[in-house]
Amino acid sequence: MKYSLLFPKTLKKAPSGAESINQQLLVRAGFIHQEMAGVYTYLPLGWRVLDKISDIVREEMDKIGGQEMLMPVLHPKANWAKTGRLKSFDVLYKLEDVVLGPSHEEIIYPLLSEYVKSYKDLPLCLYQIQMKFRNEPRAKAGLLRGREFLMKDLYSFHVSDEDRDAYYEKVRAVYIKIFKKIGLDVLKTKAGGGTFSDLSEEFQVMTPSGEDTIFVCEKCSSVINKELVQDKKCLECGGGLQEKRAIEVGNIFPLKRSYAEVFNLYFTDKNGEKKIVSAGCYGLGISRCMGAIVEVFHDGQGIIWPESVAPFQIHLVGLDLEDKKVMDEAEKIYKLLQVEDPERSRRTEGIEVLYDDRSDVSAGVKFADADLIGIPFRVVVSKKTQDKLEVKKRSEKETKFVSLKELIKMIELSD
Amino acid sequence: MKYSLLFPKTLKKAPSGAESINQQLLVRAGFIHQEMAGVYTYLPLGWRVLDKISDIVREEMDKIGGQEMLMPVLHPKANWAKTGRLKSFDVLYKLEDVVLGPSHEEIIYPLLSEYVKSYKDLPLCLYQIQMKFRNEPRAKAGLLRGREFLMKDLYSFHVSDEDRDAYYEKVRAVYIKIFKKIGLDVLKTKAGGGTFSDLSEEFQVMTPSGEDTIFVCEKCSSVINKELVQDKKCLECGGGLQEKRAIEVGNIFPLKRSYAEVFNLYFTDKNGEKKIVSAGCYGLGISRCMGAIVEVFHDGQGIIWPESVAPFQIHLVGLDLEDKKVMDEAEKIYKLLQVEDPERSRRTEGIEVLYDDRSDVSAGVKFADADLIGIPFRVVVSKKTQDKLEVKKRSEKETKFVSLKELIKMIELSD
Repeated sequence: MKYSLLFPKTLKKAPSGAESINQQLLVRAGFIHQEMAGVYTYLPLGWRVLDKISDIVREEMDKIGGQEMLMPVLHPKANWAKTGRLKSFDVLYKLEDVVLGPSHEEIIYPLLSEYVKSYKDLPLCLYQIQMKFRNEPRAKAGLLRGREFLMKDLYSFHVSDEDRDAYYEKVRAVYIKIFKKIGLDVLKTKAGGGTFSDLSEEFQVMTPSGEDTIFVCEKCSSVINKELVQDKKCLECGGGLQEKRAIEVGNIFPLKRSYAEVFNLYFTDKNGEKKIVSAGCYGLGISRCMGAIVEVFHDGQGIIWPESVAPFQIHLVGLDLEDKKVMDEAEKIYKLLQVEDPERSRRTEGIEVLYDDRSDVSAGVKFADADLIGIPFRVVVSKKTQDKLEVKKRSEKETKFVSLKELIKMIELSD
Repeated sequence: MKYSLLFPKTLKKAPSGAESINQQLLVRAGFIHQEMAGVYTYLPLGWRVLDKISDIVREEMDKIGGQEMLMPVLHPKANWAKTGRLKSFDVLYKLEDVVLGPSHEEIIYPLLSEYVKSYKDLPLCLYQIQMKFRNEPRAKAGLLRGREFLMKDLYSFHVSDEDRDAYYEKVRAVYIKIFKKIGLDVLKTKAGGGTFSDLSEEFQVMTPSGEDTIFVCEKCSSVINKELVQDKKCLECGGGLQEKRAIEVGNIFPLKRSYAEVFNLYFTDKNGEKKIVSAGCYGLGISRCMGAIVEVFHDGQGIIWPESVAPFQIHLVGLDLEDKKVMDEAEKIYKLLQVEDPERSRRTEGIEVLYDDRSDVSAGVKFADADLIGIPFRVVVSKKTQDKLEVKKRSEKETKFVSLKELIKMIELSD
């Protein structure tokens, strides 16, 4: 993508009212635009990041037998009346005959009860990546607490609690893997279950700007959410608890049996007996992860995207472009990097390049924009570079002069 | 995907109340599930089709300079009050302080007015693929008239009407190409512009089950929508008009200047003069296309998917699976077809296979399910087939015995 064509360009300063780091940087760098409190447009750069996080999540969900589908935003109000959550779910958007889905138990249980009859129909693991809606009275902190946000929700259904628990363990392990892949260190945290279940486990990213309060045991390192804190003593070992700030990026929990009762989700087992279906629910906040990544990975100059979710791999900066020879060289490098090449190990698709081809701004402005946007590799072509390329990793200080071939090798090795 | 694991299985008959062909077949075959009038879950098979249509649209949008982004569903009510559409848009979902987006002029104009200052910032072509909401009082006909539906909307912004008109022509040509790619023959139809513009062009698929009425000139073949009919004479040549039924799958129109006025979308031209931005809007109904395809491509047995949008390319049917030799052969073929093979022209990713591995249903049931689901190639492995495969195209009657290599060649040649 040529930067001259990209919508929009960076802003000199964050708009007033953007109090959190992720909102300030994502808005300034041109990833998101706020439409109202807690409601954002994902601009082309931001949409690329969301899409990459989604694809990483999708790949891992498919590996544990998840089948992707898409449930609606509009839910019949009657379903929510049945579970009692029309009243108890405090941030529900309600219209005349519908509510906007903040979660999908009220859709997936009645759906399954039409199809699941026998033990042969189980287990089932179904997921979607979809916008969720919660009428947050205090929508704030950029992508951390939105009224409209992108979430992956997986639901699993089983013949027994034991079978569900085994799958639950699998999901827990996969979650750790996903968060690692997208660059986030998470703490598994015991928490309450809200209207969903009795207990849940949260995945929390420890960071001073976090909205959640968690308690870490000084002795055994186990972590609990503030809902479960009693006397500030560890539930496991009785050790002292330290209060920390964190961002919840995922949560998993066994679902209350009452959903299956209300929506009549039973099956016939091998012996012809009627049994209740056991279920689990596994949420992962895709847009919230994007916000959390920025909270963790930034410096005074801007964002530092982990390579797995960066909107582009290379930020190619063309300098001295009034010199036709340099301009031609920069264009050539831009094209060569993007070429599909089956000989490049693990990268037949070509490398994603954002090419700053502007001829009306200074080198300083281009470097500042590159730092703000935060693409992993900055590559300069200029009069000075001649037949080499000047490479700098966004996360490091040193620049190096390398050939195109060496650059491609660097990128292949690093992801 | 193994059919034994796929959610859900086919239904013996369509649910009561499903009056349209697309709803009957898509529900029976397990592509969609109705949650309420006009609101559907896209089940795993249906989600694959939607995704394929989206990808074809995306590819073509990118080729004409479209930049993908994602605008929100929740719109500030104030924006809709500004354009007067809070009252005039008759199927708008309204909540206390927000409306649910049925179209995105009220978001994209204010967004652009923050970034577009100079002629250098134009042209801009931005699009999204997103759920839209319209409170249809008579939601019906399956995916043809929904309350929640997937749409691609592209907006283009230009320094002049001439520039916009040139881009408009480009989009028109690309639309014809997209519809052809997904198997739909469309008629370009002149129509009114509703609350959006003065005139518009619709892309209509002629079919007896269509909800729209169009008029085709007997003499010059030009087509107009019923809004524009006067005395049943052609506007171009005065010829007689024939009334036909059709499904509108896309529409394109120059946007009324009043949007730019209301949201203050002006720019400074080369001479330093302030000028109004000229714009166009280009809609394409992704989920409606899925419905239209089924209305056009089906027979008494089920759906006949065009290869470009089919959920899988091959429906592999294993028969006599109680015979271990046959079972092993079927599993082997299932795996080999899916292998990534760079030597296969145009298909390094492997072939998508739905494998009916059930051992508890008859050959008759499996064939009936394959016809209902409508995947382009049915491939049988049985005692009879030995080292060959029995292939039948869904759209044809004859079966052929071929080798694996010949089968792969057939598929490569046909798409």
